[in-house]
Amino acid sequence: MKLATVRTAEHATRAVRVDDDRLVDLGCDTLDELLARPGWRDRAAAAATSYAADAVDYAPVVTRPGKIVCVGLNYRNHILEMSRELPEFPTLFAKYAESLIGAEDAIVLPPESDAVDWEAELAVVIGDRVRRATTQQASDAIAGFAVLNDVTMRDWQYRSPMWLQGKTWEETTPLGPYLVTPDELPGGTRPALALVGEVNGEVVQKADTADLVFDPVRLVEYVSTMITLQPGDVIATGTPGGVGHARKPARYLHNGDVLTTTITGLGSSTCRAAQAAV
Amino acid sequence: MKLATVRTAEHATRAVRVDDDRLVDLGCDTLDELLARPGWRDRAAAAATSYAADAVDYAPVVTRPGKIVCVGLNYRNHILEMSRELPEFPTLFAKYAESLIGAEDAIVLPPESDAVDWEAELAVVIGDRVRRATTQQASDAIAGFAVLNDVTMRDWQYRSPMWLQGKTWEETTPLGPYLVTPDELPGGTRPALALVGEVNGEVVQKADTADLVFDPVRLVEYVSTMITLQPGDVIATGTPGGVGHARKPARYLHNGDVLTTTITGLGSSTCRAAQAAV
Repeated sequence: MKLATVRTAEHATRAVRVDDDRLVDLGCDTLDELLARPGWRDRAAAAATSYAADAVDYAPVVTRPGKIVCVGLNYRNHILEMSRELPEFPTLFAKYAESLIGAEDAIVLPPESDAVDWEAELAVVIGDRVRRATTQQASDAIAGFAVLNDVTMRDWQYRSPMWLQGKTWEETTPLGPYLVTPDELPGGTRPALALVGEVNGEVVQKADTADLVFDPVRLVEYVSTMITLQPGDVIATGTPGGVGHARKPARYLHNGDVLTTTITGLGSSTCRAAQAAV
Repeated sequence: MKLATVRTAEHATRAVRVDDDRLVDLGCDTLDELLARPGWRDRAAAAATSYAADAVDYAPVVTRPGKIVCVGLNYRNHILEMSRELPEFPTLFAKYAESLIGAEDAIVLPPESDAVDWEAELAVVIGDRVRRATTQQASDAIAGFAVLNDVTMRDWQYRSPMWLQGKTWEETTPLGPYLVTPDELPGGTRPALALVGEVNGEVVQKADTADLVFDPVRLVEYVSTMITLQPGDVIATGTPGGVGHARKPARYLHNGDVLTTTITGLGSSTCRAAQAAV
Protein backbone atom coordinates (compact mmCIF):
# COMPACT_ATOMS: atom_id res chain seq x y z
CA MET A 1 0.00 0.00 0.00
CA LYS A 2 0.93 3.62 -0.58
CA LEU A 3 -0.34 5.91 2.18
CA ALA A 4 -0.23 9.69 2.37
CA THR A 5 -1.58 12.81 3.99
CA VAL A 6 -3.10 15.10 1.37
CA ARG A 7 -4.43 18.65 1.46
CA THR A 8 -7.91 19.00 0.10
CA ALA A 9 -9.47 22.03 -1.56
CA GLU A 10 -10.62 23.29 1.86
CA HIS A 11 -6.98 23.35 3.12
CA ALA A 12 -7.81 20.63 5.61
CA THR A 13 -5.85 17.40 5.34
CA ARG A 14 -6.96 13.77 4.97
CA ALA A 15 -5.14 10.46 5.30
CA VAL A 16 -5.45 8.45 2.09
CA ARG A 17 -4.39 5.28 0.36
CA VAL A 18 -2.93 6.08 -3.05
CA ASP A 19 -4.29 3.66 -5.68
CA ASP A 20 -2.83 4.80 -8.99
CA ASP A 21 -4.92 7.85 -9.94
CA ARG A 22 -7.52 7.37 -7.18
CA LEU A 23 -7.19 8.33 -3.52
CA VAL A 24 -9.03 6.23 -0.98
CA ASP A 25 -10.14 8.08 2.15
CA LEU A 26 -8.94 6.47 5.39
CA GLY A 27 -11.35 8.17 7.78
CA CYS A 28 -8.87 10.47 9.56
CA ASP A 29 -7.26 13.83 8.99
CA THR A 30 -3.62 12.76 8.99
CA LEU A 31 -1.55 9.63 8.58
CA ASP A 32 -0.21 10.39 12.08
CA GLU A 33 -3.73 9.76 13.36
CA LEU A 34 -4.23 6.58 11.33
CA LEU A 35 -0.93 5.04 12.46
CA ALA A 36 -1.83 5.65 16.10
CA ARG A 37 -4.92 3.41 15.77
CA PRO A 38 -4.57 -0.30 16.49
CA GLY A 39 -5.15 -2.37 13.38
CA TRP A 40 -4.35 0.51 11.01
CA ARG A 41 -2.99 -1.86 8.35
CA ASP A 42 -6.30 -3.73 8.01
CA ARG A 43 -8.27 -0.50 8.18
CA ALA A 44 -6.17 1.03 5.40
CA ALA A 45 -6.43 -2.08 3.23
CA ALA A 46 -10.23 -2.29 3.66
CA ALA A 47 -11.06 1.38 2.93
CA ALA A 48 -13.05 1.99 -0.25
CA THR A 49 -14.36 5.57 -0.60
CA SER A 50 -12.22 7.13 -3.29
CA TYR A 51 -11.77 10.40 -5.12
CA ALA A 52 -9.63 11.57 -8.02
CA ALA A 53 -5.96 12.20 -7.19
CA ASP A 54 -5.73 15.41 -9.18
CA ALA A 55 -7.88 17.41 -6.74
CA VAL A 56 -5.28 17.40 -3.92
CA ASP A 57 -1.68 18.02 -3.12
CA TYR A 58 0.64 16.23 -0.71
CA ALA A 59 1.22 17.33 2.86
CA PRO A 60 4.24 15.82 4.66
CA VAL A 61 3.54 12.05 4.91
CA VAL A 62 3.15 12.52 8.67
CA THR A 63 2.45 16.08 9.69
CA ARG A 64 3.46 16.25 13.37
CA PRO A 65 5.70 13.33 14.28
CA GLY A 66 6.61 13.33 17.96
CA LYS A 67 10.18 12.49 16.99
CA ILE A 68 12.32 12.89 13.93
CA VAL A 69 15.59 11.04 14.53
CA CYS A 70 18.29 11.73 11.95
CA VAL A 71 21.36 9.62 11.27
CA GLY A 72 24.76 11.05 10.31
CA LEU A 73 27.30 9.40 7.99
CA ASN A 74 25.65 6.05 7.19
CA TYR A 75 26.52 5.10 3.57
CA ARG A 76 29.35 2.57 3.42
CA ASN A 77 30.81 3.68 0.07
CA HIS A 78 30.78 7.31 1.07
CA ILE A 79 32.50 6.63 4.40
CA LEU A 80 35.16 4.47 2.77
CA GLU A 81 35.77 7.00 -0.03
CA MET A 82 36.39 9.59 2.69
CA SER A 83 39.01 7.15 4.11
CA ARG A 84 37.12 6.93 7.36
CA GLU A 85 36.48 3.75 9.30
CA LEU A 86 32.98 2.35 9.49
CA PRO A 87 31.45 3.58 12.76
CA GLU A 88 30.64 1.27 15.64
CA PHE A 89 27.55 3.30 16.57
CA PRO A 90 25.22 5.48 14.53
CA THR A 91 25.50 9.26 14.89
CA LEU A 92 22.07 10.55 15.87
CA PHE A 93 20.63 14.04 15.95
CA ALA A 94 17.17 15.57 15.81
CA LYS A 95 14.92 17.69 13.66
CA TYR A 96 11.61 19.23 14.78
CA ALA A 97 8.28 18.67 13.06
CA GLU A 98 7.93 22.29 11.91
CA SER A 99 10.76 21.66 9.45
CA LEU A 100 8.62 19.30 7.33
CA ILE A 101 7.01 20.17 3.99
CA GLY A 102 5.10 18.15 1.40
CA ALA A 103 6.63 16.67 -1.73
CA GLU A 104 5.69 19.58 -3.99
CA ASP A 105 5.98 22.44 -1.50
CA ALA A 106 8.56 25.22 -1.63
CA ILE A 107 11.76 24.89 0.39
CA VAL A 108 11.84 28.19 2.28
CA LEU A 109 15.28 29.80 1.96
CA PRO A 110 15.83 31.97 5.04
CA PRO A 111 17.62 35.29 4.57
CA GLU A 112 19.80 34.30 7.57
CA SER A 113 21.64 31.55 5.64
CA ASP A 114 23.86 31.63 2.54
CA ALA A 115 24.58 27.92 2.53
CA VAL A 116 21.43 25.85 2.07
CA ASP A 117 22.45 22.33 1.03
CA TRP A 118 20.73 19.04 0.09
CA GLU A 119 20.86 15.56 1.66
CA ALA A 120 18.73 12.96 -0.15
CA GLU A 121 17.61 10.27 2.30
CA LEU A 122 15.44 7.22 2.87
CA ALA A 123 12.98 7.84 5.74
CA VAL A 124 11.49 5.14 7.95
CA VAL A 125 8.01 5.78 9.38
CA ILE A 126 7.10 3.90 12.56
CA GLY A 127 3.78 2.03 12.72
CA ASP A 128 3.82 0.49 16.20
CA ARG A 129 4.88 1.49 19.68
CA VAL A 130 8.19 -0.24 20.52
CA ARG A 131 10.79 -0.08 23.27
CA ARG A 132 13.91 -2.26 23.40
CA ALA A 133 12.70 -3.92 20.22
CA THR A 134 14.16 -7.26 19.19
CA THR A 135 15.16 -7.55 15.53
CA GLN A 136 11.78 -9.05 14.67
CA GLN A 137 9.84 -6.44 16.68
CA ALA A 138 11.88 -3.68 15.04
CA SER A 139 11.09 -5.01 11.59
CA ASP A 140 7.39 -5.38 12.42
CA ALA A 141 7.24 -1.82 13.78
CA ILE A 142 8.16 -0.25 10.45
CA ALA A 143 5.00 1.13 8.81
CA GLY A 144 6.84 1.93 5.63
CA PHE A 145 9.37 4.09 3.83
CA ALA A 146 9.30 7.50 2.22
CA VAL A 147 11.54 9.97 0.42
CA LEU A 148 13.09 12.71 2.59
CA ASN A 149 15.60 15.46 1.94
CA ASP A 150 17.44 16.62 5.06
CA VAL A 151 17.99 20.14 3.74
CA THR A 152 20.71 21.74 5.85
CA MET A 153 21.93 25.25 6.53
CA ARG A 154 25.69 24.51 6.56
CA ASP A 155 26.69 27.91 7.98
CA TRP A 156 24.40 27.39 10.98
CA GLN A 157 25.23 23.67 11.26
CA TYR A 158 28.87 24.55 11.98
CA ARG A 159 28.24 27.52 14.30
CA SER A 160 28.52 25.15 17.27
CA PRO A 161 29.68 21.57 17.80
CA MET A 162 26.08 20.30 17.58
CA TRP A 163 24.38 20.21 14.18
CA LEU A 164 20.78 20.86 15.29
CA GLN A 165 20.65 24.53 14.37
CA GLY A 166 21.57 23.76 10.78
CA LYS A 167 19.05 21.01 10.52
CA THR A 168 15.72 22.26 11.72
CA TRP A 169 14.74 25.39 9.84
CA GLU A 170 11.04 25.88 9.31
CA GLU A 171 9.55 24.39 6.13
CA THR A 172 12.73 23.03 4.62
CA THR A 173 12.50 19.22 4.77
CA PRO A 174 10.37 17.45 2.14
CA LEU A 175 8.88 14.17 3.38
CA GLY A 176 6.93 12.15 0.85
CA PRO A 177 4.94 12.12 -1.42
CA TYR A 178 3.71 8.95 0.33
CA LEU A 179 4.93 6.04 2.37
CA VAL A 180 5.11 2.58 0.86
CA THR A 181 4.61 -0.47 3.06
CA PRO A 182 7.58 -2.89 3.22
CA ASP A 183 5.72 -5.77 1.53
CA GLU A 184 5.81 -3.84 -1.76
CA LEU A 185 9.57 -3.24 -1.74
CA PRO A 186 12.54 -5.42 -2.75
CA GLY A 187 14.31 -6.21 0.52
CA GLY A 188 11.19 -5.50 2.61
CA THR A 189 12.16 -3.65 5.82
CA ARG A 190 15.79 -3.53 4.61
CA PRO A 191 14.93 -2.19 1.18
CA ALA A 192 17.41 -2.17 -1.69
CA LEU A 193 16.36 0.87 -3.70
CA ALA A 194 18.09 3.37 -5.95
CA LEU A 195 18.22 6.85 -4.40
CA VAL A 196 18.88 9.87 -6.61
CA GLY A 197 19.15 13.56 -5.74
CA GLU A 198 18.97 16.17 -8.53
CA VAL A 199 19.32 19.94 -8.65
CA ASN A 200 17.69 21.53 -11.70
CA GLY A 201 17.69 18.11 -13.34
CA GLU A 202 21.40 17.43 -12.78
CA VAL A 203 22.16 14.31 -10.74
CA VAL A 204 24.13 15.31 -7.63
CA GLN A 205 23.64 12.26 -5.37
CA LYS A 206 23.20 8.61 -6.25
CA ALA A 207 23.25 5.55 -4.00
CA ASP A 208 21.62 2.24 -3.19
CA THR A 209 19.78 2.09 0.14
CA ALA A 210 21.18 -1.43 0.64
CA ASP A 211 24.53 0.29 1.25
CA LEU A 212 23.49 1.68 4.65
CA VAL A 213 25.87 0.75 7.49
CA PHE A 214 22.96 0.77 9.97
CA ASP A 215 19.91 -0.51 8.11
CA PRO A 216 16.35 0.54 9.03
CA VAL A 217 15.70 -2.48 11.27
CA ARG A 218 18.97 -1.97 13.15
CA LEU A 219 18.15 1.74 13.60
CA VAL A 220 14.72 0.97 15.08
CA GLU A 221 16.37 -1.52 17.48
CA TYR A 222 19.06 1.00 18.43
CA VAL A 223 16.85 4.04 18.96
CA SER A 224 14.22 2.03 20.82
CA THR A 225 16.87 0.94 23.31
CA MET A 226 16.86 4.43 24.72
CA ILE A 227 13.34 5.66 24.07
CA THR A 228 9.91 4.44 23.00
CA LEU A 229 9.29 4.82 19.29
CA GLN A 230 5.69 5.81 18.65
CA PRO A 231 3.47 5.48 15.58
CA GLY A 232 4.24 8.32 13.19
CA ASP A 233 7.81 8.83 14.41
CA VAL A 234 10.36 9.24 11.62
CA ILE A 235 13.94 8.06 11.26
CA ALA A 236 15.94 9.75 8.49
CA THR A 237 18.63 7.19 7.67
CA GLY A 238 21.43 9.46 6.44
CA THR A 239 22.73 10.71 3.10
CA PRO A 240 25.35 9.42 0.66
CA GLY A 241 28.12 11.51 -0.95
CA GLY A 242 27.44 14.35 -3.32
CA VAL A 243 26.28 17.15 -1.06
CA GLY A 244 26.93 20.70 -2.21
CA HIS A 245 29.14 21.65 0.76
CA ALA A 246 31.76 19.01 -0.20
CA ARG A 247 32.12 20.30 -3.78
CA LYS A 248 34.93 22.57 -4.88
CA PRO A 249 33.71 25.20 -5.09
CA ALA A 250 30.82 24.54 -2.70
CA ARG A 251 27.38 24.67 -4.28
CA TYR A 252 24.18 25.65 -2.49
CA LEU A 253 20.50 26.12 -3.27
CA HIS A 254 19.41 29.51 -4.55
CA ASN A 255 16.06 31.09 -5.24
CA GLY A 256 14.30 29.16 -8.01
CA ASP A 257 16.49 26.03 -7.91
CA VAL A 258 14.49 22.81 -8.08
CA LEU A 259 15.51 19.96 -5.76
CA THR A 260 14.26 16.55 -6.85
CA THR A 261 14.69 13.51 -4.62
CA THR A 262 13.73 10.11 -5.98
CA ILE A 263 13.79 6.61 -4.52
CA THR A 264 12.71 3.81 -6.85
CA GLY A 265 9.31 2.56 -5.69
CA LEU A 266 8.82 5.49 -3.28
CA GLY A 267 8.25 8.25 -5.82
CA SER A 268 9.82 11.70 -5.96
CA SER A 269 9.65 15.00 -4.18
CA THR A 270 10.18 18.04 -6.43
CA CYS A 271 10.59 21.22 -4.40
CA ARG A 272 11.46 24.68 -5.60
CA ALA A 273 13.73 26.76 -3.36
CA ALA A 274 12.02 30.07 -2.66
CA GLN A 275 13.22 33.04 -0.64
CA ALA A 276 11.29 33.54 2.58
CA ALA A 277 8.86 36.43 2.73
CA VAL A 278 10.02 37.85 6.09
CA MET B 1 1.30 32.47 39.34
CA LYS B 2 2.57 28.94 39.81
CA LEU B 3 1.14 26.55 37.21
CA ALA B 4 1.52 22.79 37.00
CA THR B 5 0.22 19.56 35.55
CA VAL B 6 -0.75 17.16 38.34
CA ARG B 7 -1.78 13.53 38.39
CA THR B 8 -5.05 12.91 40.18
CA ALA B 9 -6.13 9.76 42.01
CA GLU B 10 -7.58 8.38 38.77
CA HIS B 11 -4.16 8.65 37.07
CA ALA B 12 -5.52 11.26 34.71
CA THR B 13 -3.80 14.64 34.73
CA ARG B 14 -5.13 18.17 35.25
CA ALA B 15 -3.65 21.60 34.71
CA VAL B 16 -3.70 23.60 37.94
CA ARG B 17 -2.68 26.86 39.53
CA VAL B 18 -0.73 26.20 42.73
CA ASP B 19 -1.93 28.50 45.53
CA ASP B 20 0.03 27.49 48.64
CA ASP B 21 -1.67 24.29 49.81
CA ARG B 22 -4.63 24.57 47.41
CA LEU B 23 -4.70 23.60 43.73
CA VAL B 24 -7.02 25.54 41.46
CA ASP B 25 -8.38 23.60 38.51
CA LEU B 26 -7.73 25.28 35.13
CA GLY B 27 -10.28 23.36 33.07
CA CYS B 28 -7.89 21.29 30.98
CA ASP B 29 -5.94 18.06 31.31
CA THR B 30 -2.44 19.42 30.86
CA LEU B 31 -0.60 22.71 30.99
CA ASP B 32 0.35 22.04 27.35
CA GLU B 33 -3.35 22.39 26.54
CA LEU B 34 -3.83 25.53 28.64
CA LEU B 35 -0.84 27.31 27.11
CA ALA B 36 -2.16 26.61 23.60
CA ARG B 37 -5.34 28.60 24.33
CA PRO B 38 -5.39 32.31 23.58
CA GLY B 39 -5.72 34.37 26.76
CA TRP B 40 -4.38 31.57 29.00
CA ARG B 41 -2.90 34.05 31.47
CA ASP B 42 -6.28 35.63 32.24
CA ARG B 43 -7.99 32.27 32.30
CA ALA B 44 -5.43 30.92 34.79
CA ALA B 45 -5.67 34.01 36.98
CA ALA B 46 -9.48 33.90 37.07
CA ALA B 47 -9.91 30.19 37.86
CA ALA B 48 -11.42 29.42 41.27
CA THR B 49 -12.38 25.74 41.76
CA SER B 50 -9.80 24.39 44.16
CA TYR B 51 -8.85 21.15 45.88
CA ALA B 52 -6.26 20.20 48.50
CA ALA B 53 -2.71 19.87 47.19
CA ASP B 54 -1.99 16.68 49.11
CA ALA B 55 -4.26 14.50 46.95
CA VAL B 56 -2.07 14.73 43.84
CA ASP B 57 1.45 14.40 42.56
CA TYR B 58 3.29 16.37 39.91
CA ALA B 59 3.49 15.29 36.29
CA PRO B 60 6.11 17.03 34.13
CA VAL B 61 5.09 20.72 33.97
CA VAL B 62 4.27 20.21 30.31
CA THR B 63 3.74 16.60 29.36
CA ARG B 64 4.27 16.47 25.59
CA PRO B 65 6.13 19.58 24.42
CA GLY B 66 6.53 19.61 20.65
CA LYS B 67 10.12 20.74 21.13
CA ILE B 68 12.68 20.54 23.90
CA VAL B 69 15.68 22.63 22.89
CA CYS B 70 18.74 22.19 25.10
CA VAL B 71 21.71 24.53 25.38
CA GLY B 72 25.30 23.37 25.89
CA LEU B 73 27.96 25.23 27.87
CA ASN B 74 26.19 28.45 28.91
CA TYR B 75 27.43 29.50 32.39
CA ARG B 76 30.03 32.24 32.17
CA ASN B 77 32.01 31.30 35.30
CA HIS B 78 32.17 27.68 34.29
CA ILE B 79 33.39 28.48 30.76
CA LEU B 80 36.03 30.89 32.06
CA GLU B 81 37.23 28.47 34.75
CA MET B 82 37.71 25.87 31.98
CA SER B 83 39.89 28.53 30.24
CA ARG B 84 37.59 28.56 27.24
CA GLU B 85 36.44 31.63 25.39
CA LEU B 86 32.85 32.73 25.66
CA PRO B 87 31.01 31.35 22.63
CA GLU B 88 29.63 33.58 19.88
CA PHE B 89 26.63 31.29 19.35
CA PRO B 90 24.77 28.94 21.67
CA THR B 91 25.30 25.19 21.24
CA LEU B 92 21.87 23.63 20.73
CA PHE B 93 20.72 20.03 20.81
CA ALA B 94 17.43 18.24 21.39
CA LYS B 95 15.66 15.95 23.79
CA TYR B 96 12.36 14.16 23.10
CA ALA B 97 9.25 14.46 25.26
CA GLU B 98 9.33 10.82 26.43
CA SER B 99 12.39 11.68 28.51
CA LEU B 100 10.38 13.89 30.88
CA ILE B 101 9.29 12.92 34.41
CA GLY B 102 7.59 14.76 37.24
CA ALA B 103 9.40 16.39 40.15
CA GLU B 104 8.99 13.43 42.50
CA ASP B 105 9.17 10.59 39.98
CA ALA B 106 11.96 8.03 39.76
CA ILE B 107 14.82 8.60 37.33
CA VAL B 108 14.91 5.31 35.45
CA LEU B 109 18.49 3.97 35.30
CA PRO B 110 18.80 1.84 32.16
CA PRO B 111 20.89 -1.33 32.37
CA GLU B 112 22.58 -0.20 29.13
CA SER B 113 24.43 2.71 30.82
CA ASP B 114 27.02 2.84 33.61
CA ALA B 115 27.45 6.59 33.53
CA VAL B 116 24.24 8.41 34.41
CA ASP B 117 25.10 11.99 35.33
CA TRP B 118 23.28 15.13 36.47
CA GLU B 119 22.91 18.61 34.94
CA ALA B 120 20.84 21.05 37.02
CA GLU B 121 19.20 23.63 34.75
CA LEU B 122 16.75 26.48 34.48
CA ALA B 123 14.00 25.67 31.96
CA VAL B 124 12.02 28.21 29.97
CA VAL B 125 8.44 27.30 29.00
CA ILE B 126 6.99 29.09 25.98
CA GLY B 127 3.56 30.69 26.26
CA ASP B 128 2.99 32.20 22.82
CA ARG B 129 3.68 31.28 19.22
CA VAL B 130 6.71 33.27 17.97
CA ARG B 131 8.91 33.31 14.90
CA ARG B 132 11.81 35.72 14.39
CA ALA B 133 10.90 37.29 17.69
CA THR B 134 12.20 40.74 18.55
CA THR B 135 13.66 41.13 22.04
CA GLN B 136 10.31 42.36 23.34
CA GLN B 137 8.34 39.60 21.60
CA ALA B 138 10.77 37.00 22.94
CA SER B 139 10.35 38.30 26.48
CA ASP B 140 6.56 38.36 26.12
CA ALA B 141 6.52 34.79 24.77
CA ILE B 142 7.98 33.33 27.97
CA ALA B 143 5.18 31.70 29.98
CA GLY B 144 7.47 31.06 32.89
CA PHE B 145 10.38 29.13 34.34
CA ALA B 146 10.78 25.72 35.92
CA VAL B 147 13.44 23.46 37.40
CA LEU B 148 14.90 20.84 35.04
CA ASN B 149 17.67 18.31 35.34
CA ASP B 150 19.18 17.27 32.00
CA VAL B 151 20.17 13.81 33.24
CA THR B 152 22.72 12.42 30.78
CA MET B 153 24.13 8.99 29.93
CA ARG B 154 27.76 10.03 29.42
CA ASP B 155 28.84 6.72 27.85
CA TRP B 156 26.13 7.05 25.19
CA GLN B 157 26.64 10.81 24.81
CA TYR B 158 30.20 10.22 23.62
CA ARG B 159 29.51 7.20 21.39
CA SER B 160 29.22 9.58 18.43
CA PRO B 161 30.02 13.24 17.76
CA MET B 162 26.38 14.22 18.44
CA TRP B 163 25.13 14.19 22.05
CA LEU B 164 21.47 13.27 21.41
CA GLN B 165 21.77 9.59 22.32
CA GLY B 166 23.09 10.42 25.78
CA LYS B 167 20.39 13.01 26.36
CA THR B 168 17.05 11.47 25.60
CA TRP B 169 16.58 8.28 27.60
CA GLU B 170 13.02 7.49 28.59
CA GLU B 171 11.86 8.88 31.95
CA THR B 172 15.08 10.51 33.02
CA THR B 173 14.55 14.28 32.92
CA PRO B 174 12.66 15.89 35.82
CA LEU B 175 10.76 19.03 34.80
CA GLY B 176 8.98 20.87 37.59
CA PRO B 177 7.32 20.79 40.09
CA TYR B 178 5.64 23.84 38.52
CA LEU B 179 6.33 26.83 36.36
CA VAL B 180 6.42 30.31 37.84
CA THR B 181 5.40 33.30 35.73
CA PRO B 182 8.12 35.94 35.22
CA ASP B 183 6.28 38.69 37.16
CA GLU B 184 6.96 36.78 40.40
CA LEU B 185 10.71 36.49 39.86
CA PRO B 186 13.60 38.91 40.49
CA GLY B 187 14.85 39.79 37.03
CA GLY B 188 11.59 38.81 35.35
CA THR B 189 12.25 37.05 32.05
CA ARG B 190 16.01 37.23 32.76
CA PRO B 191 15.72 35.87 36.27
CA ALA B 192 18.54 36.04 38.80
CA LEU B 193 18.01 32.93 40.91
CA ALA B 194 20.20 30.57 42.90
CA LEU B 195 20.42 27.12 41.31
CA VAL B 196 21.59 24.17 43.42
CA GLY B 197 22.04 20.49 42.53
CA GLU B 198 22.43 17.91 45.28
CA VAL B 199 23.09 14.18 45.34
CA ASN B 200 21.99 12.50 48.56
CA GLY B 201 21.95 15.92 50.21
CA GLU B 202 25.48 16.88 49.18
CA VAL B 203 25.72 20.03 47.08
CA VAL B 204 27.34 19.18 43.73
CA GLN B 205 26.33 22.16 41.57
CA LYS B 206 25.72 25.78 42.51
CA ALA B 207 25.22 28.81 40.30
CA ASP B 208 23.24 31.97 39.71
CA THR B 209 20.98 31.97 36.66
CA ALA B 210 22.02 35.59 36.01
CA ASP B 211 25.39 34.14 34.96
CA LEU B 212 24.04 32.65 31.72
CA VAL B 213 25.93 33.75 28.60
CA PHE B 214 22.76 33.48 26.51
CA ASP B 215 19.87 34.52 28.74
CA PRO B 216 16.33 33.20 28.29
CA VAL B 217 15.15 36.15 26.19
CA ARG B 218 18.17 35.90 23.89
CA LEU B 219 17.60 32.12 23.52
CA VAL B 220 13.96 32.61 22.52
CA GLU B 221 15.07 35.19 19.94
CA TYR B 222 17.81 32.90 18.62
CA VAL B 223 15.79 29.69 18.37
CA SER B 224 12.79 31.47 16.88
CA THR B 225 15.00 32.77 14.06
CA MET B 226 15.10 29.25 12.67
CA ILE B 227 11.80 27.75 13.76
CA THR B 228 8.46 28.72 15.25
CA LEU B 229 8.35 28.32 19.03
CA GLN B 230 4.95 27.03 20.10
CA PRO B 231 3.13 27.22 23.45
CA GLY B 232 4.43 24.46 25.69
CA ASP B 233 7.84 24.22 24.03
CA VAL B 234 10.75 24.04 26.47
CA ILE B 235 14.25 25.50 26.36
CA ALA B 236 16.73 23.99 28.84
CA THR B 237 19.28 26.76 29.33
CA GLY B 238 22.39 24.71 30.17
CA THR B 239 24.19 23.58 33.30
CA PRO B 240 27.00 25.10 35.39
CA GLY B 241 30.12 23.26 36.61
CA GLY B 242 29.98 20.37 39.04
CA VAL B 243 28.75 17.47 36.90
CA GLY B 244 29.83 13.98 37.95
CA HIS B 245 31.69 13.21 34.73
CA ALA B 246 34.19 16.04 35.34
CA ARG B 247 35.12 14.83 38.85
CA LYS B 248 38.24 12.81 39.56
CA PRO B 249 37.26 10.06 39.91
CA ALA B 250 34.04 10.47 37.93
CA ARG B 251 30.86 10.07 39.93
CA TYR B 252 27.53 8.83 38.56
CA LEU B 253 24.05 8.09 39.82
CA HIS B 254 23.39 4.63 41.21
CA ASN B 255 20.30 2.80 42.32
CA GLY B 256 18.77 4.60 45.32
CA ASP B 257 20.67 7.88 44.94
CA VAL B 258 18.48 10.94 45.39
CA LEU B 259 18.96 13.84 42.97
CA THR B 260 17.60 17.15 44.22
CA THR B 261 17.49 20.20 41.97
CA THR B 262 16.44 23.53 43.46
CA ILE B 263 16.04 27.01 42.04
CA THR B 264 15.04 29.72 44.49
CA GLY B 265 11.44 30.66 43.80
CA LEU B 266 10.87 27.73 41.46
CA GLY B 267 10.85 24.94 44.03
CA SER B 268 12.70 21.62 43.94
CA SER B 269 12.56 18.30 42.18
CA THR B 270 13.62 15.34 44.33
CA CYS B 271 14.01 12.19 42.27
CA ARG B 272 15.29 8.80 43.32
CA ALA B 273 17.41 6.91 40.80
CA ALA B 274 15.90 3.47 40.31
CA GLN B 275 17.04 0.58 38.13
CA ALA B 276 14.75 -0.08 35.18
CA ALA B 277 12.55 -3.15 35.33
CA VAL B 278 13.37 -4.47 31.84
